[in-house]
Amino acid sequence: MSEMNLYDAMSTLRAVRRLRPDPIPDDVLHRVLEAATWAPSGGNVQAWRMLLVRERPLKAALGALYAERWAAYTAHYRELMAGQPADAIERSERTLAAGNHLAEHFADTPAVLIFCFNPQHMAITDSEQDRPSVVGGGSIYPAVQNALLAARAEGLGCVLTTLLCQEEPKVRELLEIPDPWYTAAAVPLGYPVAGGHGPIRRRPPEKMTFSDRWGKAYQR
Amino acid sequence: MSEMNLYDAMSTLRAVRRLRPDPIPDDVLHRVLEAATWAPSGGNVQAWRMLLVRERPLKAALGALYAERWAAYTAHYRELMAGQPADAIERSERTLAAGNHLAEHFADTPAVLIFCFNPQHMAITDSEQDRPSVVGGGSIYPAVQNALLAARAEGLGCVLTTLLCQEEPKVRELLEIPDPWYTAAAVPLGYPVAGGHGPIRRRPPEKMTFSDRWGKAYQR
Repeated sequence: MSEMNLYDAMSTLRAVRRLRPDPIPDDVLHRVLEAATWAPSGGNVQAWRMLLVRERPLKAALGALYAERWAAYTAHYRELMAGQPADAIERSERTLAAGNHLAEHFADTPAVLIFCFNPQHMAITDSEQDRPSVVGGGSIYPAVQNALLAARAEGLGCVLTTLLCQEEPKVRELLEIPDPWYTAAAVPLGYPVAGGHGPIRRRPPEKMTFSDRWGKAYQR
Repeated sequence: MSEMNLYDAMSTLRAVRRLRPDPIPDDVLHRVLEAATWAPSGGNVQAWRMLLVRERPLKAALGALYAERWAAYTAHYRELMAGQPADAIERSERTLAAGNHLAEHFADTPAVLIFCFNPQHMAITDSEQDRPSVVGGGSIYPAVQNALLAARAEGLGCVLTTLLCQEEPKVRELLEIPDPWYTAAAVPLGYPVAGGHGPIRRRPPEKMTFSDRWGKAYQR
């Protein structure tokens, strides 16, 4: 069992999209699943489930759906990036190349975790607001994040993807997901082809935080 | 800086609602904020922000809104619990009593973190599905979970709450949150009155996971 420090795990959790086909030991997978179960959820109801997909024909079918959506996403993304500084474009192109690799090798990934949820067992407190609802996600993505952090601690590459939600009816049919359960994320898991996790680039707290009121600078 | 092991932090992260008014050192708060920034987000856009609320009048105003919604929630919750086994009801009553304490002491909490988001900078891939959208939350709640885990490692009590989303227009006005930013969570932070974090009760992986297809048992 990994003895990784919490902050070390968080500060080196990258989106790793180049994964080796080598199998993942059952005990390692189990620790990732258990970490997910520890997450908080609204009313502690745990109205979410995981599908641990390892059968190759299922992964291949998911991969075909994913590749189609990924192609559309990359076209849109390149439009957004046009006119950005050269170093930002170069970073984006590296990300897109890694994403292409994932899309092409989805079936080779040793495991894909599909996170499902039941909105009927959630108190979605922002359902009446005149903007996209997110609060249902508050009972799912903490578990996804726990799984990602555990994967990182175990040396597994992983990435949080949501593109397959665009193909949810087909995914539900393929994996026999019944009403009223839906899909929130797909997390491919596998040992990294290259370096995998490492230092990450994020905005610092001073750029992500306001003090008391919007616009009032936060300083440590 | 806390050297807590990742799995130890995850497996002992409780919802702690009885918090002491003692101030939190700036460096400790900063580590919690930084942990949040490390979280993944869609396209790495980080379309979320934190408001670190410490001014007492603001906390008092948030607390008044929270207490009203909490009272309605507890009434509904007791209806749902009617007929449950006695031990489940006893646990729920303990949770409700702790929630009452939080609602009554919101202004005394040394800090409340309000997580905000901008849906215009999110690719919400499930927006066309005929069920509540959750995917926007995939770019917010991983950061919330990181903050909770960091708080736990620092010995701070904390709890993920979303009740204030029901009062979002008032919260936005109070904290001067502009369009198109909205609120996803409020996390009170403070040192625990009593034991605080500790072992948690969750369904095991075997009850939360299916293998390949819905309904097919997962075994380690």
